[in-house]
Amino acid sequence: MGGNSFGKVFKVTSFGESHGPFIGVTIDGCPAGLKIDEEFLKIKLQQRRPGQSELTSSRDESELFQIISGLYDGISTGTPITILIPNEDNKSNDYDHLKNVYRPSHADYTYEGKYGIRDHKGGGRSSARETAARVAAGSIAQMILKLNEINVYSYTQRIGYVHLTKDYNQLDLTQIYNNKVRCPEVDVVQRMEDFIREIKEQGDTVGGVIETVVTGVPVGLGEPVFDKLHADLGKAILSINACKGFEIGSGFESANMVGSVHNDVFIHDNGVVKTLTNHSGGVQGGISNGMDIVFRAAFKPVSTIQKTQNTINSQNEETSLLIGGRHDPCVIPRAVPIVEAMTALVLCDHLLRNRLCKI
Amino acid sequence: MGGNSFGKVFKVTSFGESHGPFIGVTIDGCPAGLKIDEEFLKIKLQQRRPGQSELTSSRDESELFQIISGLYDGISTGTPITILIPNEDNKSNDYDHLKNVYRPSHADYTYEGKYGIRDHKGGGRSSARETAARVAAGSIAQMILKLNEINVYSYTQRIGYVHLTKDYNQLDLTQIYNNKVRCPEVDVVQRMEDFIREIKEQGDTVGGVIETVVTGVPVGLGEPVFDKLHADLGKAILSINACKGFEIGSGFESANMVGSVHNDVFIHDNGVVKTLTNHSGGVQGGISNGMDIVFRAAFKPVSTIQKTQNTINSQNEETSLLIGGRHDPCVIPRAVPIVEAMTALVLCDHLLRNRLCKI
Amino acid sequence: MGGNSFGKVFKVTSFGESHGPFIGVTIDGCPAGLKIDEEFLKIKLQQRRPGQSELTSSRDESELFQIISGLYDGISTGTPITILIPNEDNKSNDYDHLKNVYRPSHADYTYEGKYGIRDHKGGGRSSARETAARVAAGSIAQMILKLNEINVYSYTQRIGYVHLTKDYNQLDLTQIYNNKVRCPEVDVVQRMEDFIREIKEQGDTVGGVIETVVTGVPVGLGEPVFDKLHADLGKAILSINACKGFEIGSGFESANMVGSVHNDVFIHDNGVVKTLTNHSGGVQGGISNGMDIVFRAAFKPVSTIQKTQNTINSQNEETSLLIGGRHDPCVIPRAVPIVEAMTALVLCDHLLRNRLCKI
Amino acid sequence: MGGNSFGKVFKVTSFGESHGPFIGVTIDGCPAGLKIDEEFLKIKLQQRRPGQSELTSSRDESELFQIISGLYDGISTGTPITILIPNEDNKSNDYDHLKNVYRPSHADYTYEGKYGIRDHKGGGRSSARETAARVAAGSIAQMILKLNEINVYSYTQRIGYVHLTKDYNQLDLTQIYNNKVRCPEVDVVQRMEDFIREIKEQGDTVGGVIETVVTGVPVGLGEPVFDKLHADLGKAILSINACKGFEIGSGFESANMVGSVHNDVFIHDNGVVKTLTNHSGGVQGGISNGMDIVFRAAFKPVSTIQKTQNTINSQNEETSLLIGGRHDPCVIPRAVPIVEAMTALVLCDHLLRNRLCKI
Repeated sequence: MGGNSFGKVFKVTSFGESHGPFIGVTIDGCPAGLKIDEEFLKIKLQQRRPGQSELTSSRDESELFQIISGLYDGISTGTPITILIPNEDNKSNDYDHLKNVYRPSHADYTYEGKYGIRDHKGGGRSSARETAARVAAGSIAQMILKLNEINVYSYTQRIGYVHLTKDYNQLDLTQIYNNKVRCPEVDVVQRMEDFIREIKEQGDTVGGVIETVVTGVPVGLGEPVFDKLHADLGKAILSINACKGFEIGSGFESANMVGSVHNDVFIHDNGVVKTLTNHSGGVQGGISNGMDIVFRAAFKPVSTIQKTQNTINSQNEETSLLIGGRHDPCVIPRAVPIVEAMTALVLCDHLLRNRLCKI
Repeated sequence: MGGNSFGKVFKVTSFGESHGPFIGVTIDGCPAGLKIDEEFLKIKLQQRRPGQSELTSSRDESELFQIISGLYDGISTGTPITILIPNEDNKSNDYDHLKNVYRPSHADYTYEGKYGIRDHKGGGRSSARETAARVAAGSIAQMILKLNEINVYSYTQRIGYVHLTKDYNQLDLTQIYNNKVRCPEVDVVQRMEDFIREIKEQGDTVGGVIETVVTGVPVGLGEPVFDKLHADLGKAILSINACKGFEIGSGFESANMVGSVHNDVFIHDNGVVKTLTNHSGGVQGGISNGMDIVFRAAFKPVSTIQKTQNTINSQNEETSLLIGGRHDPCVIPRAVPIVEAMTALVLCDHLLRNRLCKI
Repeated sequence: MGGNSFGKVFKVTSFGESHGPFIGVTIDGCPAGLKIDEEFLKIKLQQRRPGQSELTSSRDESELFQIISGLYDGISTGTPITILIPNEDNKSNDYDHLKNVYRPSHADYTYEGKYGIRDHKGGGRSSARETAARVAAGSIAQMILKLNEINVYSYTQRIGYVHLTKDYNQLDLTQIYNNKVRCPEVDVVQRMEDFIREIKEQGDTVGGVIETVVTGVPVGLGEPVFDKLHADLGKAILSINACKGFEIGSGFESANMVGSVHNDVFIHDNGVVKTLTNHSGGVQGGISNGMDIVFRAAFKPVSTIQKTQNTINSQNEETSLLIGGRHDPCVIPRAVPIVEAMTALVLCDHLLRNRLCKI
Repeated sequence: MGGNSFGKVFKVTSFGESHGPFIGVTIDGCPAGLKIDEEFLKIKLQQRRPGQSELTSSRDESELFQIISGLYDGISTGTPITILIPNEDNKSNDYDHLKNVYRPSHADYTYEGKYGIRDHKGGGRSSARETAARVAAGSIAQMILKLNEINVYSYTQRIGYVHLTKDYNQLDLTQIYNNKVRCPEVDVVQRMEDFIREIKEQGDTVGGVIETVVTGVPVGLGEPVFDKLHADLGKAILSINACKGFEIGSGFESANMVGSVHNDVFIHDNGVVKTLTNHSGGVQGGISNGMDIVFRAAFKPVSTIQKTQNTINSQNEETSLLIGGRHDPCVIPRAVPIVEAMTALVLCDHLLRNRLCKI
C-alpha cells in the first residue's frame, strides 16, 4: 500500500523519480472556481530549486512546469489538477558507482530490503527531488489559504549552533526570502551563511531547525481524536526528507514546565478572544483556537558528505565509498519552502474538511 | 469529517465520551485466527487506569471490559472486534460549575467554537478517558506484534527536571511497570516520585518526556513518501492528549550535528547488517532498517491545576475559576501505556500493509 | 482489510454477529446540532424487524436500542454516534447441526475458505441480522435528508411473478408501510401476500424486486469519474444480503432502446429545468440533475428453504441437510427498509461531500 | 471531494480532459518486481481506441503512451506508476456551438450545476476519453492477474435486440477480438454488425449488454459486509460512461425464481468443491467461491445522435441542436475492453487486500 497520497478532501498524489522524465503531482479535491496563479507557483518552485547559490547543490533545475489537467481558461474546474515538472540536467552516469553499495543514512539499504529492487539513480523515489511535487501542490493550497486570509511563514530558526535571537513577533517575516538562508533576522543571516560555507569547505554537512508561523487561522480546524491539527501537521512535516523532530508551541520545553505557568489564560482583547501566552501554539484539544499556529521541525545534516565513508555493498561485503556528485551542505534553506508547502496542504485540507472555506 | 479512525489495514475506530455509559473501540482488519489474550488486555487497561497510586487521579475506574464482536471461542474471526469499557464512578455533578466557562488550555473553547455545542461533563470526547479505547485496541495489536517477535517498550524518560541518566541499552526494560512512575532506572524512580508529590502539594502539575524503544522490527516497514514510518508514529503519538513534541533517533539534537558524525555506518555483525550508531532511530528514508526504533515524546503539564485561574465564560465575560475534581498532577506515568499502545497500532498496521506479518 | 465501513464523510462502521450480545454501528462524521429523533429510529428498526407477520421469520427481536455516544441532551455533538442493538431470542442451539456443513448458497463455505474459522451460529457476521445496524445508521441519515427536503421511498415492485401495474407517479407512496408486503399499489397487495403464503406452504422461498424513488435531490450530487452517484448507490444496494442486480432509470431496458427515444429532452417548466422523460433516472454523467432518482434492485429467493438439500460438509463428504429454524419465505418486505437506509446513507454522504447540506 | 481514485491497495487515480494535452493515470500500490509488458498495454489501448472500423467513431487516436514513473529496467519498483496518453487529433473548434447549450442526456447540465464552470470541449472530464486511463491501469492489473492464473473475458452479449444464443460454456472466448463487435458467437456477429450499420444510417444510436466471465478466481476474494466482491464490481462497472445496470449470476431473473431451484448445490468433482449450478455467479455472501464469476452490464444508447434535438441553453432558453462531430453509433464494442479493465482492477485490488496474491 503505497502511501503516496496525502489529505482527505484536498488530496494530493505524488509520483516520479529523481532521474525519470518528470516529477508530478495530482490534486483531487481542489474546489472549482479557483484562479490559478501560475506566477506564484513558479516562484515557489524557484525557491525550492537547487543551484540558487553556492550554499546549495549545483544541480540546475529550471523548474519549468506544465499543468496538464483540471483548468479551463486558467480557472479550476473541480476535476483533478495534474502538474508535471520535467527533470533536467540528469547526470545519470554520476551514479554508476552507487549501484551496488548502500550509502550510510540514505534509503538505499531499506528500499532494497523492502522491495528487492532499487532505482539507484539519484536515489530514485527517495530523492528530495520528489519534494518539488509537494511544493507545486502546496502552492495551489496557498492560493486557497490566501482567499481565506491565512498566511504561512516558514523560516530558518537554526543552522548548527547559529540560531535566531528574537521571537517571531519582533521580526519582519516578509524578509525571509531576501537572503540565501531564508532567515528573517537580518543580523543572524551572515553568521548562518558563513557557517554553512565553512562546513562545506570541510566536505561536511550540517543540520538545523525550521520554524513556522501561521496567521489568520479561524477557530475550529482539526478533529478531536486522531486527526488533531498538530498531529496532522506533525505527520506532514516528519514526512519531509531528513526531518527528525516536530514540536508545537512549548514543545519539548513543556516537559520542564508547571501547569500554572504553561496554561494559556483566556482574555478579551477589543472584543476578540485571545490567550495571554501561546504555549499551546494555536492548537488546544487538537483544534485551532484562533491564535497563531507556531511549530518547529528539526532536520538532520545531509547524509551525502564529501568524505570517504565505510559501508557495505549488496554482496554484504564491507567497503568504503566517496559519493561525489552535487549536493547541499545544508538542507535547511531549500527545506523552508517545502515545510511551508506541507503546512499549506494540511491547513487547506482541514479548512475544506470543516466546510469553513471561502471559495 | 470525523477523524475518529486510525490505520489503513488494522483500522481502529474510537467512540464514547468521558461521562457516557461506555468508551469503546472497533478494530476492522484484525486477521482471523488470533487467540485473544483477555488477561493481557486487562493488564494494559489497568496500567492506564487512574487511582493506582497517590501520584495519579483518584477517579476509580475498574476497567472492566466486554468484547462484544469478532471472536469465536476466543479466536478472532476476521470480522470487526468491538470492545466496550463501561464508565463507572462518574461524578457528573462535579462539572456543573464548568458548563459555561472555558478552562485554560483545555478543549472547551475550541470544541464550542467548532461545533457550537459541547459536552462539558468531564470534557466529553476531549477527555483523556478516550485513551482507554486506544489502550484496548493497542493491546490487540501487541498480541500480533508478539507473534512476530516485535516488542514495544515505552517508559518515563523525564519528569520536569528529573531524567534518566543512562541509555536504554544499560537499563533493564522489564522493570518499567515495577514502580509508580514507569521508569526503568531504579535510582531515578524515587526522585521522580518525590518531585511529583511536591508538585501535587503545590496544587500544580508538571510535564515530562516518554521514550519508546521497539525491538525486533524487520527491515521494510514504512512507505517511501507520505506514510514514512516515523511520520505515522509522529502523528499517532502527537494525537495523544497533552503531547507537544515528537522526535526520532537524534531528533532535535541533529540540528546541531555534522553529517560525518551523524551518519550511521553499516557494518556486518556475525552475518547481520547493523549500523555502528543509531542516530536514524531505526528508520532510514521512512523505512525501518532492522535496528531498534527509538523515539521520544514531550508532554505538557496537565492543564487542570488546583489553583484559581483567570479565564472567560461563554458570555465572553472575564471570570475566575477553581476547577476542583480529581486530576493527575503529572500525566506521564499513565501516558506510558498509551504511547505504547499507539506505537503498537502503527507497527501492526504497517506490518499488515507490508504483508510481512506472521499469522 | 475489513470492508466494514461505508461512506467518506458520513462514515458508518458496522459490527456484531447474529448471536453475539449486540449488533452495532458507529457514525463518524454526523454534523453537530442534529436533533436525534429516537422515535423515528425506533420505527425504522421495527419496519426491518422479523416476526411482524406470518409472512416473515418468527424470530422475535424487540429492537430495543441504545445510543451510547455522540449526543448531548439529544443533540449530536459532532463526535461519533454509536448505536447498540441487543440480540434477543438467540436460540443458539438451533444451529448445532450446521456447525460442520455448508448450507447451499449461504456464506458458510466462502467464510471458512477465506478465514479458516467460522461462527456458525445464525451465520455469524453473514447474517441479515447485520442489516439492523444499517437501518439504524440510515435513519440518522434520513433525519439529515429531511432537513434538506429530500425524501426516500423504497417499496416492493415485484414478488416472483406478481408485480406493480402502475408507475410510481400514479401511486400514493405514503401507503407503503400500510401493508405487510410494503407495496404502494393497493390492488396488488393481496396477490403478493397470497403468493408468499403459497410459497411458504411449499417450504420454499421466492425472490423479488424493490424500487426506490428519491425526491427533492438538488442538482450536483455525485462525483464525475469513479464515485458517480449511481455507482455509489449500486455498491450500497448490491452490498445488501441476497441482492443480485441493480439498475437505474431505463436500466437493462436501455440495451434495446435507440438514442433518439432514450435521450431526455431538457425543458422549462415554470422556470424550473426539467426533462420530458427520465430514462436517466435522475443522474446524468454520474451527477444528479434535479429529477427524481429512480432505481430498482433484484433480490434472489432466501437460501434457507424447508426442504432437504444435498450438500457437502467440512470433511468434504457429500451429505444432505434440512436446515429448520425460523426464516423468511421472502426477503423483500423486510429488505424494503434496508434499501431505504442504504439509499439514505449514500445521499447523505454525497450531500455532505458537496457542502450543499443544510444543518 | 474528488472521487477520481479507485481501489484500496491497488489504488488508481485518473486525471485529464478530452481535449487537454494528456489523459493519465497513477497506480499507487502495484507490488515491486512486476515485469511490465508494454506490448500488452498497447494492445489493450488499441482495443479501446476509436476509429477501428466504420462501426465506431472516426476520431483517430494513435494511443501512444509513456510510462513516466515507477519502473526500473522495465520492472515495477513499488513506487507509483504513472502512464500518460497524449490526446491527438483534437478538433476543439468542432465544439464551439456547444459552449452554451446543454446536450440532452449528457453531463453538460449537471457539471455546470455542480461546479458553475464547464470545459465544453469534447465533454472535458465527462468524455469517454477518460476511460483510456482505466484501460491502461487495468492492463497492469491484468499482468498481475495472469501471474495468478486469473483470466477476465468481457464480450458483447447483446446489441439492441440481437443477442447471443449460447451460454458462454459453449463458446470459444478466445474469439472475442476477432471481430468488430467483440462477440464470441460467430453466427451472431454479422447480425450485430448489420444492426449497428443500420442504426448508424438512421443517424441514431443503440444500447446493449456486455457479459463478463472471470476464471481461476480463488476462494476468498471479497469482504463480508460493505465491500462484497460483487458490490465492488457493481460500482466499478456502473462508473463506466453510459452504464445503467449491473447484475451478477441469476441477476434480475432471480426475482422470479424459487429457492429450491436457485440454490447452488455443493458437490465434489474429482476432489474439487464445485456447485452444480452457478446462479450465485461465483460469489456467495460477498466472497468468491471458486466458481467462474459471471456478470452482465447494461449500456444505454450513445447520447450523441445525428438528429436535431430540442433542449435549453445556459440562458435557460429553449433551443434546438444538431451536435455533429465524430461519434459511435453503439458504445458496446469499445466498452468491452473498458469493462474488462474495471473488472481486472477490482479483482487485483481484492487479491492484494487478501494477501493471496502471487508476486
